[in-house]
Amino acid sequence: MPAPGTDGTAMDRQACTRLDAQDPLAGVRACFSVPAGSIYLDGNSLGALQPAVTRRVRAALDEWGDGLIRSWNDARWVDLPQRVATRLAPLLGARPDEVAVTDSTSVNLFKVLLAARRLRPDRRVILTDASDFPTDRYVAGGVADLAGCEVRTVARDAVVDAIDETVAVVALTHVDYRTGAVHDAEAVGAAARAAGALTCWDLSHSTGALVVDLASWGADVAVGCTYKYLSGGPGAPAYLYVARRHHEGVESPIRGWFGHAAPFDFDDRYVPGCGADRFLAGTPAVLSLAALDAALGVWDGIARSEVEAKARALTETFVELVGTRCEGLGLELASPRDPACRGAQVSLRHPQAHAIMQALIGRGVIGDFRPPDLLRFGFAPLYVRHVDVWDAVDALADLLVTGDWDRPEHHERRTVT
Amino acid sequence: MPAPGTDGTAMDRQACTRLDAQDPLAGVRACFSVPAGSIYLDGNSLGALQPAVTRRVRAALDEWGDGLIRSWNDARWVDLPQRVATRLAPLLGARPDEVAVTDSTSVNLFKVLLAARRLRPDRRVILTDASDFPTDRYVAGGVADLAGCEVRTVARDAVVDAIDETVAVVALTHVDYRTGAVHDAEAVGAAARAAGALTCWDLSHSTGALVVDLASWGADVAVGCTYKYLSGGPGAPAYLYVARRHHEGVESPIRGWFGHAAPFDFDDRYVPGCGADRFLAGTPAVLSLAALDAALGVWDGIARSEVEAKARALTETFVELVGTRCEGLGLELASPRDPACRGAQVSLRHPQAHAIMQALIGRGVIGDFRPPDLLRFGFAPLYVRHVDVWDAVDALADLLVTGDWDRPEHHERRTVT
Repeated sequence: MPAPGTDGTAMDRQACTRLDAQDPLAGVRACFSVPAGSIYLDGNSLGALQPAVTRRVRAALDEWGDGLIRSWNDARWVDLPQRVATRLAPLLGARPDEVAVTDSTSVNLFKVLLAARRLRPDRRVILTDASDFPTDRYVAGGVADLAGCEVRTVARDAVVDAIDETVAVVALTHVDYRTGAVHDAEAVGAAARAAGALTCWDLSHSTGALVVDLASWGADVAVGCTYKYLSGGPGAPAYLYVARRHHEGVESPIRGWFGHAAPFDFDDRYVPGCGADRFLAGTPAVLSLAALDAALGVWDGIARSEVEAKARALTETFVELVGTRCEGLGLELASPRDPACRGAQVSLRHPQAHAIMQALIGRGVIGDFRPPDLLRFGFAPLYVRHVDVWDAVDALADLLVTGDWDRPEHHERRTVT
Repeated sequence: MPAPGTDGTAMDRQACTRLDAQDPLAGVRACFSVPAGSIYLDGNSLGALQPAVTRRVRAALDEWGDGLIRSWNDARWVDLPQRVATRLAPLLGARPDEVAVTDSTSVNLFKVLLAARRLRPDRRVILTDASDFPTDRYVAGGVADLAGCEVRTVARDAVVDAIDETVAVVALTHVDYRTGAVHDAEAVGAAARAAGALTCWDLSHSTGALVVDLASWGADVAVGCTYKYLSGGPGAPAYLYVARRHHEGVESPIRGWFGHAAPFDFDDRYVPGCGADRFLAGTPAVLSLAALDAALGVWDGIARSEVEAKARALTETFVELVGTRCEGLGLELASPRDPACRGAQVSLRHPQAHAIMQALIGRGVIGDFRPPDLLRFGFAPLYVRHVDVWDAVDALADLLVTGDWDRPEHHERRTVT
């Protein structure tokens, strides 16, 4: 799907409409409730709701109210983590037994990063890059303190060269949360293998937007959230991945009962469960898991390559349109220019990014702000259209031309976004 | 509220009805959906649903669907953990800044137990008892492995005497999950203080059933689940407690962004938040927290002393009725005889406990089975009536007299009961 303007056609709203008409994923948008009057370009922060999710959560409430404790068996709550993992695994290029759906991304990162480091006890470095998501670096710091090792932080482009025999684990966020820049996961994986190091990927900004293929990357462990492109809901359960080759040797530092081989035997002895399941911990969060399970249903039959292609087409349309319609208006592209090097998001730099984003939201174009100076726009491929991109850039250009963002209420600091 | 039979009146169904008529908490039952035709004596495993919770979860789905990312501010999702902690704190005898609502009980226990042990780095023992909930012992084992210390397990009655200068933390479940036996928290606290050890309580089977008063116990850290007597829903978020005197020195091993003093500044440096909030980790689970928030609303204006008194009256009625109506039918009381020494549950021992419980559930009396031989009955004080106790014992007696439990289908093993 070429972006408008690249094939000689005029870059106008009609061209966008035509692209939408040719979009093989166009019909999927109907599965989502995107509020009328909004252009939602923040699905990389919180994915949109599907009516199927609402129905499923209501059903889970009924299972609780009517079935009470019996629903652990009768409504199959007890294997909900495994059922959701089975649905999610293909989106990760993983086998179901390599995936566990549980806890938050932070907690999962703690578990698998510490576990991976313990597989390389003679090495004292967790390697990451300076643009890694802050919470990931905080978690890595906590793991290093506990495990008696250190976190080495290098520039994003210097990661591959920095992988040496001192490195236990290379821990990276695949897609940069600010710029959308994508790490070359195969290159990192190859360098890590060559040095005997392990890799740990945070896929929060990747899964559901790009082709993630943990097997071909040779990934060792991974984590990610499900509330962005997977539309699992605010604070939905996260996932973790442990490659099958590590299943025998790996231990979760948090030995919760659902990670036990037989939780309901109430054994005195801790016997870890099979595969990634040993990284489950407490009682599964049924309402949230039910929501996520229903949300993942939309991916049945969708080719990940089409999703990635659409993500690139949308971001490319956006970049092109910003280039032509907002030229000279003070915006600078903060994302890679090559669509193959970025995720399903584009960030623009402007000294007054916060006020501009607030004004844009006031006009119904919902992106977000990332300090200090980024306007961030996400293009969830399942429900964002090219015509949305057109309308968003139209609103942005108008705002910048009129200076209409420069009002006191747009400068107020908000807690989130 | 004297139990029937103890004041000279006949122990019959009418006496139970009279007790219910005098029950100051009788009106609270109307806040819960207890399915018609069921006698629910498993609220100590999964608390019953309130229609207010259903309404709130539906509202949260609407906030997600309509408000999308804006609901983090507009619907105040961002401070939902703190708002729920503020509601929960009085039930724990705690101040709001001492409580965090997040993650699962297992994950929280890992965090606070490891943090407490690190406050006593020169001591090498985590002391627990052999009847502690298995997952708590698994978690303690994981903490000990990481922290280079050991778990010492003693008999339940030997805990106080085993607290010496080698003990870093005394980690106990306040109410035994099988027998309902209650630890003397003040005595344990006093012994720990005298020896310079810290205490870590698991309150999963206590909060919402008994008076929990962490301040007067001198507790240092604590955890608990909210899906039992607090009716937060299956796998609802758990809580943790850290006494204010430790707030400056204590660290969470899992440094997630919601535990940061300013998550949305995306600081390079990890700066822990205030009080127990530094033990928050990942993005809050909004749907589950909204459910819990609504569930806790029922406690407004309820005196905990009345709840505890009713719990004791209900269990006493049950024990008395089983004593008279099931005499010679092979049951043995596995819970303490003194109601002041047990929680809101009673367990009965029988070699065929599993089949008997299955048959009882078939008759609409829902308790649960704990291996190897326990029939476990919980009496959630907010919605169980004395007349339910009568009817439950009536069904149990009939079952045992007729031998009607001894059918093949009742011997089938269920995953969870």
